[in-house]
Amino acid sequence: MKISELSRRTGVPVASIKYFLRQGLLPAGRATAATLAEYGEEHAQRLRLIKALTTLGGLSIAATREVLGAVDQAHSSESALGAVSYALPVPVAAQGAAGQEAEAEAETAADATAGAEVAELLADLDWQAPSSSPHVQGLTVALEELRRLDAQYAPGELAAYAELAESVARLDLERAAGLDDPVALAERAVIVFAICAPVFELLRRLAQEDQVRRRVADAGAGRGGRDDTLP
Amino acid sequence: MKISELSRRTGVPVASIKYFLRQGLLPAGRATAATLAEYGEEHAQRLRLIKALTTLGGLSIAATREVLGAVDQAHSSESALGAVSYALPVPVAAQGAAGQEAEAEAETAADATAGAEVAELLADLDWQAPSSSPHVQGLTVALEELRRLDAQYAPGELAAYAELAESVARLDLERAAGLDDPVALAERAVIVFAICAPVFELLRRLAQEDQVRRRVADAGAGRGGRDDTLP
Repeated sequence: MKISELSRRTGVPVASIKYFLRQGLLPAGRATAATLAEYGEEHAQRLRLIKALTTLGGLSIAATREVLGAVDQAHSSESALGAVSYALPVPVAAQGAAGQEAEAEAETAADATAGAEVAELLADLDWQAPSSSPHVQGLTVALEELRRLDAQYAPGELAAYAELAESVARLDLERAAGLDDPVALAERAVIVFAICAPVFELLRRLAQEDQVRRRVADAGAGRGGRDDTLP
Repeated sequence: MKISELSRRTGVPVASIKYFLRQGLLPAGRATAATLAEYGEEHAQRLRLIKALTTLGGLSIAATREVLGAVDQAHSSESALGAVSYALPVPVAAQGAAGQEAEAEAETAADATAGAEVAELLADLDWQAPSSSPHVQGLTVALEELRRLDAQYAPGELAAYAELAESVARLDLERAAGLDDPVALAERAVIVFAICAPVFELLRRLAQEDQVRRRVADAGAGRGGRDDTLP
């Protein structure tokens, strides 16, 4: 198909497709003339994935390139999942300049308390992850920052969250299972790991909204009036 | 205290403090001379919150201003929680230009399927949120995009995630409870809603990493070798 048809099929503007081609995110089409190229179904699929990562997933072009590189080098199901897990940007450390600042800070002012808290949590849960894991480091930085805000988790509170996170991760892995082709599995893993995170976050925000509404209603009933905080 | 002391106490560079003052995020200090001002403990506290929102929370300056406005206008505990809940940027719709594109798309090509799916989910869970809620709209856009990627949730799968999200939200609300001063409560709510989201996401990524490692180990044992996918 021509680039115009590729654009129509995926909903990605032609200018964006050309940008992704220049950035090396999308492989070149088969040249049919000096300025014409033919694109296949694999281009449409890759383009949908790029669009999802950069919009829903909120990934930068550089991060998208790294994740796609991991997808294409996947040679077994396990390596596909592992590579994608490490290639995806980490929340907290992935905030551009601010993140770099936070990282540098973590290196210099690394608080032994937060590090020990994370190590203890991992041991209690029997979770396997080395201290060099970007996820371990990100969590340490975040806990350190919460402590500075005087909003640290109470004893047991972090473990309660972690147990729920384990259940969510189990659902995630189930969604990524059952695909044999490593590249297809890696693509699915990217979607589940990167794009379903915002979906869960939205569900959590919806649940918060529901619980806040109930409190407002209770308080309003208690006062014999109503509260117009939420539309 | 002087601005240099405020910087030392909060770890925020003087240049950044001046920027936040110019942007109206931080109230001006008490002028003691033409070019000198005196800052109090409330400035240090506000500065720590701004720093946390813009780094850990990943909020833009504009979003931070809106959230702080909601914090300062909180007049009751319930209104503080509600206002903060709506002022925080929504994942999916909050991705700058890309987000705007996704929103416009949702308006024009709004798929009835995703909208009906969200409405049914809310009814099943007995969650209260109007269709105008930014969380309902964000979830609809996200489900629509997943459908386009042929990665929609299987029947019951979204409900399984939603039930876990409800448990997480309940922990969130507990953390935000017990504070009587509306502004203090709103500040705590901002931290819990905006900054603990990355913490939960990190816990989920850690749990994923653990589960992937176990699969790699199992596969390696099965082949009588080991797989060096993850460091």
